Amino acid sequence: MAQAAELVESAIARLLPTTDLPEAVLYDAMRYGSLGGGKRLRPFLVLTSASLFGVGEECAVRTAAAVEFVHCYSLIHDDLPAMDDGDLRRGRPTVHRQFDEATAILAGDGLLTFAFEVLADPATHEDPNVRCQLVAALARAAGPHGMVGGQMLDLIAEHETFDMGTVTRLQRMKTGEMIAFGCEAGAILGKAGAPQRHALHAYAHDLGLAFQIADDLLDIEGTEAETGKGVGRDAVAGKATFVSILGRDRARAQAEMLSRQAVSHLEIFDGRADLLKAVAEYVVTRRA
Amino acid sequence: MAQAAELVESAIARLLPTTDLPEAVLYDAMRYGSLGGGKRLRPFLVLTSASLFGVGEECAVRTAAAVEFVHCYSLIHDDLPAMDDGDLRRGRPTVHRQFDEATAILAGDGLLTFAFEVLADPATHEDPNVRCQLVAALARAAGPHGMVGGQMLDLIAEHETFDMGTVTRLQRMKTGEMIAFGCEAGAILGKAGAPQRHALHAYAHDLGLAFQIADDLLDIEGTEAETGKGVGRDAVAGKATFVSILGRDRARAQAEMLSRQAVSHLEIFDGRADLLKAVAEYVVTRRA
Repeated sequence: MAQAAELVESAIARLLPTTDLPEAVLYDAMRYGSLGGGKRLRPFLVLTSASLFGVGEECAVRTAAAVEFVHCYSLIHDDLPAMDDGDLRRGRPTVHRQFDEATAILAGDGLLTFAFEVLADPATHEDPNVRCQLVAALARAAGPHGMVGGQMLDLIAEHETFDMGTVTRLQRMKTGEMIAFGCEAGAILGKAGAPQRHALHAYAHDLGLAFQIADDLLDIEGTEAETGKGVGRDAVAGKATFVSILGRDRARAQAEMLSRQAVSHLEIFDGRADLLKAVAEYVVTRRA
Repeated sequence: MAQAAELVESAIARLLPTTDLPEAVLYDAMRYGSLGGGKRLRPFLVLTSASLFGVGEECAVRTAAAVEFVHCYSLIHDDLPAMDDGDLRRGRPTVHRQFDEATAILAGDGLLTFAFEVLADPATHEDPNVRCQLVAALARAAGPHGMVGGQMLDLIAEHETFDMGTVTRLQRMKTGEMIAFGCEAGAILGKAGAPQRHALHAYAHDLGLAFQIADDLLDIEGTEAETGKGVGRDAVAGKATFVSILGRDRARAQAEMLSRQAVSHLEIFDGRADLLKAVAEYVVTRRA
């Protein structure tokens, strides 16, 4: 994962160079919000799933950077005062604290838009059909039916009590769809057949939920020093989470079950997907 | 233009149906921010430029809706308290006043993302190369090198004094690139040759600047009842505009010169571009 993180870090720096244009602060804020940290889980999934199908590194790295741009934009907007009002992210001031609110809104908008510019560029894949599939799949994962819809549900969760089914749907939309896109992107880039796509989809679905339950556990068990962001905020906000509904022990058992189930979907790859298996174990044991 | 506005209005309503999902308020806010009004200049340009090349109505209308989604998202975010802090838009409360700030941020994000989903969908054009070109061109027009960069410059203009060159660049980025995309989209959809694309590009470039100078004039000469939004705000904010730099008379003369120049680029179309010519005249005489 560290190797993937380095690859994507240098790709982001290359795609978003500094500038001395009068609007340089926009690029500074976009770089600040997307460089220097994070687990880079989604880029790792892109690179790892792409390697299953022999996809060229440049194609995979550009796609990995695009998905990370979208992830980072969502963090910038999520941290805004009108949303989660976060001061700290990856151990540093959030973008609107480091710059200002207007710049943070625009930096997020810029990263989201730029992600699609990167994907639609012929440098990402020679086949325009592949590029269109990437754009369509990322837009679905990130849009109203995916991440943005999940964030809306997350806001509603502050003053409505959701049942287990709605919390599961919320989390699938808010984080699961983007994680699934990371896994499927490799299959799209590699023009994989339906069985392999379905296997990756099923894997990603279980991985995403396991990841989120682990996140909820970290929110009550982790420390700010470990996670690099504020903790305990779900409980303060009175939000229903997997942990508040299931309790800590059942939530942990559920995450571990999902992790094992995710691994089982990878059998079709005959041992070539060991890295993805390791990720499924990592997401439920991580401390940050 | 009224006919084009009706077409795009019904396309938006169809692409963004109401829902009874728990996150229905997101769709309500996206519909509120994109339905019911506006000049629909950009969709009109898409439909009109597409008609020059015999593009099918469904292709043109979907592309027109996508460009309007991006335009409307930019208005929603631009109206936020941290940005222009607008209360009124198209004669109605702005999205964050009608709903709340968080919902407005997400509705804007949702519209922007959904625009790319619409363009990448095979229903927009059967040729994936055309769809990719649309995505790439819209992302460039809307992103850091275009609209978002222009909005950043616009914020900077509140506390820095720009010269005529920088104000021109600001306006080209903030509104000109999206207007240019509207004109070029028809050429992309119709797989037009380079001379025709260049003609439309040159037309759009002049049209965009003429439009913006007229906008600056309206900001000092128009009334709130006519424009449906607050007026006189540029002067209050101390922003350099074409009018503050050139003075009212020279600004008006410049807009009219640009309008005539825009028309002159359309000669290549042998009288088939009369609607686009009429638009160039409209943008400098409009009262809203």
